[in-house]
Amino acid sequence: MATRGTGYSHSGELTRTVHGGDWQGAVDRYGWRVDEILDFSANINPLGPPAGVLAVLKENLAAIQRYPDPASRRFKEALASSTQLETGSLIAANGAVELIYLVLQVLKPQRVLVSEPTFSEYHRAARAAGAGVVTITLDPEADFSFDLERWRRELPGVQLAFICNPDNPTGRLLAPNILQEVVNCCQAAGVFLVVDESFLDFIPNGEEYSLARLAATRPGLLILHSLTKIYALPGLRLGYGVGHPELVSRLETGRDPWSVNILAQMAGVIALGETGYIKETQALIGREKEFLWQHLAKLAGFQPYNPEVNFILTRILDDRLAAPVLAELLARRGILIRDCSSFPGLGPHYFRVAVRDRQANERLLAALGELVAGIPASEP
Amino acid sequence: MATRGTGYSHSGELTRTVHGGDWQGAVDRYGWRVDEILDFSANINPLGPPAGVLAVLKENLAAIQRYPDPASRRFKEALASSTQLETGSLIAANGAVELIYLVLQVLKPQRVLVSEPTFSEYHRAARAAGAGVVTITLDPEADFSFDLERWRRELPGVQLAFICNPDNPTGRLLAPNILQEVVNCCQAAGVFLVVDESFLDFIPNGEEYSLARLAATRPGLLILHSLTKIYALPGLRLGYGVGHPELVSRLETGRDPWSVNILAQMAGVIALGETGYIKETQALIGREKEFLWQHLAKLAGFQPYNPEVNFILTRILDDRLAAPVLAELLARRGILIRDCSSFPGLGPHYFRVAVRDRQANERLLAALGELVAGIPASEP
Repeated sequence: MATRGTGYSHSGELTRTVHGGDWQGAVDRYGWRVDEILDFSANINPLGPPAGVLAVLKENLAAIQRYPDPASRRFKEALASSTQLETGSLIAANGAVELIYLVLQVLKPQRVLVSEPTFSEYHRAARAAGAGVVTITLDPEADFSFDLERWRRELPGVQLAFICNPDNPTGRLLAPNILQEVVNCCQAAGVFLVVDESFLDFIPNGEEYSLARLAATRPGLLILHSLTKIYALPGLRLGYGVGHPELVSRLETGRDPWSVNILAQMAGVIALGETGYIKETQALIGREKEFLWQHLAKLAGFQPYNPEVNFILTRILDDRLAAPVLAELLARRGILIRDCSSFPGLGPHYFRVAVRDRQANERLLAALGELVAGIPASEP
Repeated sequence: MATRGTGYSHSGELTRTVHGGDWQGAVDRYGWRVDEILDFSANINPLGPPAGVLAVLKENLAAIQRYPDPASRRFKEALASSTQLETGSLIAANGAVELIYLVLQVLKPQRVLVSEPTFSEYHRAARAAGAGVVTITLDPEADFSFDLERWRRELPGVQLAFICNPDNPTGRLLAPNILQEVVNCCQAAGVFLVVDESFLDFIPNGEEYSLARLAATRPGLLILHSLTKIYALPGLRLGYGVGHPELVSRLETGRDPWSVNILAQMAGVIALGETGYIKETQALIGREKEFLWQHLAKLAGFQPYNPEVNFILTRILDDRLAAPVLAELLARRGILIRDCSSFPGLGPHYFRVAVRDRQANERLLAALGELVAGIPASEP
């Protein structure tokens, strides 16, 4: 039994978003200079943007005085070449999040299915589009593993479902056979499926888990893909979707034609050619996630979930230490982590950290070690 | 009688957008290098971006590896200081167009009122949001002047109305007393009013025409303002809205939290401090629009509408010369104009040109003169 409960919400206020990466808040509250902050709260490639991207942007800054190409022609051609898909199946986006909102505004489902904990924008965008949200709350004792049985049971009551693979914040990756089951049962139930593969590029054999090729020819399926995490461009905003050409055309028709800025389009063309950079990233992340996970596990009171991707969800076992307090204590030291208490299905004793380079990871571990050492031992 | 007709459309296909600024199309079709193209088809400040903006972006390009601040704090503070409005009344946007789509998605009107010809995204965004569009077609013989009487008559059938002031593509500016009437009759009818002031900064006493101060405290009114035209940053995307704090909060809640990229936010902070640049722009536009208008009027077969802003709508009087043909002939010479045949209410004999600097304007006039001279005289 991998599920703790099911919820349904429709009315009521949408709350303000809470996300990682709030460097501006840390600057304002703690007086840090932005370059002094060590940010583990956003899951960004620790290598930073490919050098070629920064060079091309610097060289071509004056391009900002031209409108972006609404058709993103050069970027989509580069994407087609890199993914081996037709341009007609591809849609460029102002970050993958633009497409979460767009697909809901265009398809207008009445009810949407999400398994939680997961990226909060699925829920928020569904509510913004006037949809009710059916939630399946996954069990931490079962490592938040996907509950296919419950999923099947809930499908008849919804028109659209989100899957995040690998999931943020749990880091769980769905195996290809489970994914195929999910696709089949959505198709059988007539439920539109959105699969967010934004973190798949961090996994060496990620393409084995991707449904992009299927989505390009099969109606009822949209793949979201962020380029901001893998290429460390979150400030520039860039992502894409893969779907049947008819779906892509509907999505294009329903949105602001200039949503993807010209520098993001240029950066995308260069970044997609940087295949060596991806391999280097995967090697670094592979090494460092093991290092960080093992050392987090050695710290008293922390239970990190074994990561399959570039971030680690960790449970705080000591009830006296809540994640918001830990995040605050670290922020005072210039280190940001993602307090996960805003994720439905998690509560106040979880945090998430990005996998960074060795030096940064050691600084995090040292700071955590000192904080833990400062907590008096519990009564026997 | 300033109106030619009224239309109502609801169902049917949304067509692909046609807009000016398609430099990529000209590169692909005519083989021009992008820096060889003289673009009169997009209404962008001919001074180019303020030098301070390019310098700051160059210096801070590495910021793209951080998420944009979802609250756009620094940009909104700069905007509050520049507009003398509270930050709570301001919403930053990925270009003003983002807000056109957003306000419709959030308010979900059933029917929307627009006077045509006008910026086509109001119509397109309304259709994308599932709204019907009631159109008032203005009379070219009456210089496309606003038809207040007809406007009043149509208000009871709609929930939201758009005004573009000054209007694109006609260049017509609504006087403050008419604007006040429009606001009052919308309020009386319970119709939400969106006023797009994206070109107002090009007019020396533009603030006298602005409803921003009113919108900050009065429900039912949203002002849109582009910063991409006046600061020549269309590729970067930046705009803002002004509305009652409760409306701003609803709009913020309904959208992608990272839609405004980090470079646009930075550019906005710098640009808003460049007051000398605005004065220089207004002086240049004031001089050059007169020059361009007078010389267009001297060309046989062209009837330019007297411009109040930084672009000129021109009617081609010779029935044998259609705007798409003229645009094509000029594009072969590396000059882009906006063929206006895609604007409902105009038809195939109108084009629009931006006001640029003297050298560019002279090149346009010379090319037009040569083309006109090449057309055989009509039969007597």
